[in-house]
Amino acid sequence: MELDEINPNVLNVKPSAMRKFDHDISSDPQIVKLTLGEPNFNVPEHIKKAAHEAIDKNESHYAYYWGVEELREAASNYYRDKFGYHYTKDQIVVTVGATEALSSTVKTLFKPGDAVILPTPAYPLYNALLTLNDLKTILIDTSDSGFVLTPEKVQQAISDYPDYNIKGLILTDPNNPTGVAYTQEQIENLAPVLKDNGIWVISDEIYGELTYGQAHYSISKLLPDQTIVINGLSKSHAMTGWRIGFVFGPTGFIDQIAKVHQFTVTTPTSIVQYASIEALTNGQNDAAAMRKEYLKRRDFVAKEMKEAGFDVVHPGGAFYVFAKIPAGLHMDSWDFVKTLAKEYHIGLMPGDAFGDNAYIRISYAASDEALSTAMKAIKQMVKDKTKEKV
Amino acid sequence: MELDEINPNVLNVKPSAMRKFDHDISSDPQIVKLTLGEPNFNVPEHIKKAAHEAIDKNESHYAYYWGVEELREAASNYYRDKFGYHYTKDQIVVTVGATEALSSTVKTLFKPGDAVILPTPAYPLYNALLTLNDLKTILIDTSDSGFVLTPEKVQQAISDYPDYNIKGLILTDPNNPTGVAYTQEQIENLAPVLKDNGIWVISDEIYGELTYGQAHYSISKLLPDQTIVINGLSKSHAMTGWRIGFVFGPTGFIDQIAKVHQFTVTTPTSIVQYASIEALTNGQNDAAAMRKEYLKRRDFVAKEMKEAGFDVVHPGGAFYVFAKIPAGLHMDSWDFVKTLAKEYHIGLMPGDAFGDNAYIRISYAASDEALSTAMKAIKQMVKDKTKEKV
Repeated sequence: MELDEINPNVLNVKPSAMRKFDHDISSDPQIVKLTLGEPNFNVPEHIKKAAHEAIDKNESHYAYYWGVEELREAASNYYRDKFGYHYTKDQIVVTVGATEALSSTVKTLFKPGDAVILPTPAYPLYNALLTLNDLKTILIDTSDSGFVLTPEKVQQAISDYPDYNIKGLILTDPNNPTGVAYTQEQIENLAPVLKDNGIWVISDEIYGELTYGQAHYSISKLLPDQTIVINGLSKSHAMTGWRIGFVFGPTGFIDQIAKVHQFTVTTPTSIVQYASIEALTNGQNDAAAMRKEYLKRRDFVAKEMKEAGFDVVHPGGAFYVFAKIPAGLHMDSWDFVKTLAKEYHIGLMPGDAFGDNAYIRISYAASDEALSTAMKAIKQMVKDKTKEKV
Repeated sequence: MELDEINPNVLNVKPSAMRKFDHDISSDPQIVKLTLGEPNFNVPEHIKKAAHEAIDKNESHYAYYWGVEELREAASNYYRDKFGYHYTKDQIVVTVGATEALSSTVKTLFKPGDAVILPTPAYPLYNALLTLNDLKTILIDTSDSGFVLTPEKVQQAISDYPDYNIKGLILTDPNNPTGVAYTQEQIENLAPVLKDNGIWVISDEIYGELTYGQAHYSISKLLPDQTIVINGLSKSHAMTGWRIGFVFGPTGFIDQIAKVHQFTVTTPTSIVQYASIEALTNGQNDAAAMRKEYLKRRDFVAKEMKEAGFDVVHPGGAFYVFAKIPAGLHMDSWDFVKTLAKEYHIGLMPGDAFGDNAYIRISYAASDEALSTAMKAIKQMVKDKTKEKV
């Protein structure tokens, strides 16, 4: 059978360069990786205990496909208390991590040919999902506005693409890869242009609990009828590999996405759903200790990278530093990360994976020791390679 | 925001009538359910132990998106030994149950407008996936050929739809809902017409270990270059709610589906992947005890249903009896199951959910006591309702 006749949208999409690069460098036993957005914390003990109990109670049967009712109830309460979300349990579907929340949302909202705005740099999953679903992507470069999407930029995109049926925007706040956390004022400025133009907002708030010195403000408060919120337990409770996410949205939308979700995965792992009830009921403060550590590390990495000659945007949230490679190195992001991996055994992500080849992304969801080793190596490499070029 | 502008394929698909009906009748505290295809066995203790250990070892991080390598290696060996599959670990992707294996396969293989053959009665997921992906569905009724798809029927469909680009066939063997297990001879008869017409076969073999008196024979042996095999641990190891499935296919296809899979869910739950290594390494005989029980129950249910006046197709596999409602009742499948649930507190699935309104499906993945209660109630209902009609 010939493969060239299969779905062209699948052929057109590239595998994640991020995960491939991470996988490739993992064969180096000396490598210190600051690549993936993966907490180096373990799942809190009380949640692990709840998972053990769910196994012992033989919770091995299908959960109702929307997700266990008690979990949706717990999510409704938890996120209302944390961020003021207004969603009832019947406006929530439990998904296989934020990834499935996003993929099912994109599939549900848009039809082939619709256009979606994507501020860049951006997490590569979004672009892949738009390609897979045969959607037009309007990239908006935010590097000249502090990596913040402004209403003027949205208005400009609408003017630039008069023939496009612009149906949606994907907003990541706090942002991956830049670490930028939108202020309430920035969100309030942005909302009207989206409302006026009837643009659905897919608001990926997976890093919502990881903000430093400011509270997360969700755009769903201003645009409740046209916002789909994505969240989950991967970052707040260090449960990445356990795969629990949530979609929150208006009732009519939730009824539709529930079908897509059901026919895509049935439902997430039952024992993890039960453990997640514990996370959302008694784990309100699980992120606090992590946040404290992350803040220390952020300050350390940002300082060190500036000393090494990088431009660093102020990261108000998440656990990334997005740093501009010193011009004196004459290196793009792939040159930089490949050299750093090969010669200095440190793994970073190239900005190109996110749409900006002049930057590299450092995940500081790593141990102090790893960060210290990495900073030394980066400084050394800048010194070595600047010399070589002279 | 108006929902009538969202993806029309999503609007067009109906939520699973099966799961909704099951959910609705569950509010009756007296209900005895023989509805879902859900083993009443628990996950074997050695697999639960492995899951406990994975939690304690903090296996909470992202697995590589193809699935944990050791698990793919174990799957390669296990299914080679069980059914003679020829797939190496690099021709396997670990999925969120068989559902995600199917949804990612359909998404990968076909482009909007392609046509896919679906023998009926069929598990409703298939039809929903074809609608969601904007594919044309060619239904082939198999009720007049003992619920077996014959080459003549495929040839007839090709002649009947000369303008269709027939790209695929979904085969479920052993079958849900009919319980029919194809013989090697039936598979050998079927293969040539598929080969000659370049039709991809999606072979759902999730019930492969549950055959009675005959060995499962996979069509992948005859059509290795155009078969995608779907399997998983839900039925063989009673792990439905734990959500582990596998896709097996030719290398070129696997490279493509790996992208769809990654961008749909990232990867299944890590702790369950580690537990699944144990299932496939030391759980070769886990299904044997279940199979023995299922066989006894099958014989009991088939006998009782015949006595009650139903036509029953001989179920050679899976754990379903598909039974034709006695003509004297003048009831279609919804009338029958709704009356049985409301007045007799027994839950069955209407054949209409699978495309044949003259039948009901009984899952005998239930306790002897539940089956005995159900059989009595069904006999009573047939007696009562036949009287009423006279």
